Amino acid sequence: MQKEVLKEPTYVEELLTLFRSNLGKEELLEKISDYHESDIADAMEQMTPEERKKLYPLLGEEYIAEILSYTEDAAEYLQEINLENAARVISEMDSDDAVDVLENLDADTKTRIVDLLDDDAEKDVKLILSYEDDEIGSKMTTNFIVIGKNLNIRQATHELIRQAGENDNISTIYVVDENEQYYGAIDLKDLIVARDYQDLDNLISTSYPYVGAHEKISECIERLKDYAEDSIPVLSEEGKILGVITAYDIVEAVDEEMGEDYAKLAGLTAEEDLEETTFQSMKKRLPWLIILLFLGMVVSSVVGIFETVVAVIPIVMCFQSLILDMAGNVGTQSLAVTIRVLMDENLNRKDKFGLILKEMRIGFANGLFLGIMAFVFIGLYVCFIKGNALSYSFLISGCVGVSLMLAMVISSLVGTTIPLLFHKIKVDPAVASGPLITTVNDLVAVVTYYGLVWLFMIELLKI
Amino acid sequence: MQKEVLKEPTYVEELLTLFRSNLGKEELLEKISDYHESDIADAMEQMTPEERKKLYPLLGEEYIAEILSYTEDAAEYLQEINLENAARVISEMDSDDAVDVLENLDADTKTRIVDLLDDDAEKDVKLILSYEDDEIGSKMTTNFIVIGKNLNIRQATHELIRQAGENDNISTIYVVDENEQYYGAIDLKDLIVARDYQDLDNLISTSYPYVGAHEKISECIERLKDYAEDSIPVLSEEGKILGVITAYDIVEAVDEEMGEDYAKLAGLTAEEDLEETTFQSMKKRLPWLIILLFLGMVVSSVVGIFETVVAVIPIVMCFQSLILDMAGNVGTQSLAVTIRVLMDENLNRKDKFGLILKEMRIGFANGLFLGIMAFVFIGLYVCFIKGNALSYSFLISGCVGVSLMLAMVISSLVGTTIPLLFHKIKVDPAVASGPLITTVNDLVAVVTYYGLVWLFMIELLKI
Repeated sequence: MQKEVLKEPTYVEELLTLFRSNLGKEELLEKISDYHESDIADAMEQMTPEERKKLYPLLGEEYIAEILSYTEDAAEYLQEINLENAARVISEMDSDDAVDVLENLDADTKTRIVDLLDDDAEKDVKLILSYEDDEIGSKMTTNFIVIGKNLNIRQATHELIRQAGENDNISTIYVVDENEQYYGAIDLKDLIVARDYQDLDNLISTSYPYVGAHEKISECIERLKDYAEDSIPVLSEEGKILGVITAYDIVEAVDEEMGEDYAKLAGLTAEEDLEETTFQSMKKRLPWLIILLFLGMVVSSVVGIFETVVAVIPIVMCFQSLILDMAGNVGTQSLAVTIRVLMDENLNRKDKFGLILKEMRIGFANGLFLGIMAFVFIGLYVCFIKGNALSYSFLISGCVGVSLMLAMVISSLVGTTIPLLFHKIKVDPAVASGPLITTVNDLVAVVTYYGLVWLFMIELLKI
Repeated sequence: MQKEVLKEPTYVEELLTLFRSNLGKEELLEKISDYHESDIADAMEQMTPEERKKLYPLLGEEYIAEILSYTEDAAEYLQEINLENAARVISEMDSDDAVDVLENLDADTKTRIVDLLDDDAEKDVKLILSYEDDEIGSKMTTNFIVIGKNLNIRQATHELIRQAGENDNISTIYVVDENEQYYGAIDLKDLIVARDYQDLDNLISTSYPYVGAHEKISECIERLKDYAEDSIPVLSEEGKILGVITAYDIVEAVDEEMGEDYAKLAGLTAEEDLEETTFQSMKKRLPWLIILLFLGMVVSSVVGIFETVVAVIPIVMCFQSLILDMAGNVGTQSLAVTIRVLMDENLNRKDKFGLILKEMRIGFANGLFLGIMAFVFIGLYVCFIKGNALSYSFLISGCVGVSLMLAMVISSLVGTTIPLLFHKIKVDPAVASGPLITTVNDLVAVVTYYGLVWLFMIELLKI
């Protein structure tokens, strides 16, 4: 047996060759059926609109619908087809994918296509559109299998096979009672290995997890992640199954939630992408910057109080940026840790207190370490490079070192306490904490540093 | 039909009541079989070790194994059981979960348990442990269904049912050829709806995606996400199937990757959690802080050059923190956007150039806006609160405004270019960019600001 080395798949290139080869419809479909729709979508991205227009009739609406759910350019492609066919494609798509595509179309095309959708698709699309973007209902798909609770194993299997043609989320089969109320769920594997004489009821998990359609995504995403299921049912207020959230929806939601937190930590109001206009991006960045400008003016006026200190000992101003930067970074570290902890776990009062203490302990330990380093290195710098007396130099670097340590402890405290407080009063800590923490830490650092220099060097030692 | 309102499930409470009710083994198992293992794991978390110890014999090793894969405290619980039983539990777990649990045990217990594992489990566990943490092989599970390519539909279905008892990732069935080489995949749905007379070969996607066991997680995670599949096969260099990556593994990997990027943006070397010791957390935070301390000293010595400017016009030092903070924030915004774009897309030279131009455009637009605001408000402040002449006040605020604008444009440029450069030379831009960008931006802002004041107010106007 020859030993070969694993190659990266070149499916997209292979598909492009197939699409450009003038094969007949049958033969082409036969060949591309071996490929994944995601790869087909990637290949289509590399084709010209003219090439794609020749391809659409060969693929047919159902296949196009499947492929388009794997690309972000679906709206663009649909404008290459006539409106009736576009509506037929969207009717064939999973309802959540259909909604995604519709929302990328201009308002006019969207309305006209919705009017042309088949009844089922229109109902599903309107249902999903009726939920807010932050509600779980807006993420669900209506592609799932549901059976009545009074079937026997053979009937259930038959029903599964019948519905599997239309709905391909088959790994969990949902069960409703006589009143169409959600009753439970069956793991497909259990149904497959079941014997005909078994009772279907024994296969049903009646306490299978579910989620309410109006629940906030940010509030239930951790729970959904923990279940690690291929799908979780979404129920109406009356306990009817409206749709399901698939594992893939959860991947997307986790990605979005974390992306938002990441963006907020960086001082953006929302995540950005490459396709946005400059104006859209500006709008996401300006709010935080404006707030910071005004808070920065507050810091400036506090620095102004210490003008006299700088007038007497100008060299101290050199180290202001150092202390402020360090305080800012320590505060950001504590903020980031606290926000992640708040997102992942339910903290009781004792946990919170423990977290604050731990952050302060880390701030103190790191501050002590860096304070001593600053004391030594800055002292040497002021003495030998700037040419000052030894005692004077280490008096200055001592003030820098002590301020650095104090500022780091206080920044850790502030960086932990402020997000905890915001979380308590139900304000998103990731948004609100950033500017406030920067400002508070700047103020603390400035007051500590110049205050210390003033107290020691001017008031006590009269230098 | 009565209308009821959807309630949050109280499964964990119900389970606690069941566990504490002294039911017989049969009855208890019958009742809890309706619940999800994740809820059972949550209930166990709320029980005392004594309560749990009474529960284990009732559940049996196989059930315990299933439950423990849903909790992070699995290692702790295993120490409440004797070593032989613990080994039996781990033998029953999915291989990737087993590895997770083993890695949370102390080295001694780990070795002793690995020795006691059954042969299959030991082989799988050792295989997964043989991959680096950042390789996809370390995330895979060996729980999957595989059949030969020469079976007919009936044989394939029979084989599926036989293997489904052991392996529950059944939604994709993998196919190997005569040499046990990976040949393709069958969607379970297609097998279920297939008729006996059909040819199995028609159901097989021979160009189904795969991933190499040694591929870096960070490099293939976007690709895996795009396929949106319940499982993707992991192949050896020789093209044999070693395991699969499930949708849930992808959720976890996305969560981790983003968590790492988030942590790095905040100046942590890795993500932290509540359970770490102070020392562990210190180690994650100190590296960045030490680098920053030294880079900060560089900035300090540059500020030192402008001591004379401050000696002549002390009020200008008040606004140093403002300009540095703003430049820092703008740089972080650009950095965050660039890192996300680099993670999500493959950029060509033109895209990169476009991104830099766009960031500079945003920096200029925001800078112009904020510069004008700073000019007006700081001018008024210096004039009326600080009591300076009108022209002198607006000369100073003019310097602040212009420096702010220039600093913001340059910070955008730096915040975009540096991560792109690091990405190009294959250094993780999220780690390396932070401190460098802060420092470069500080330097630029300081030189622009004090340079401008010196040039205009001291050299030209001789104030």
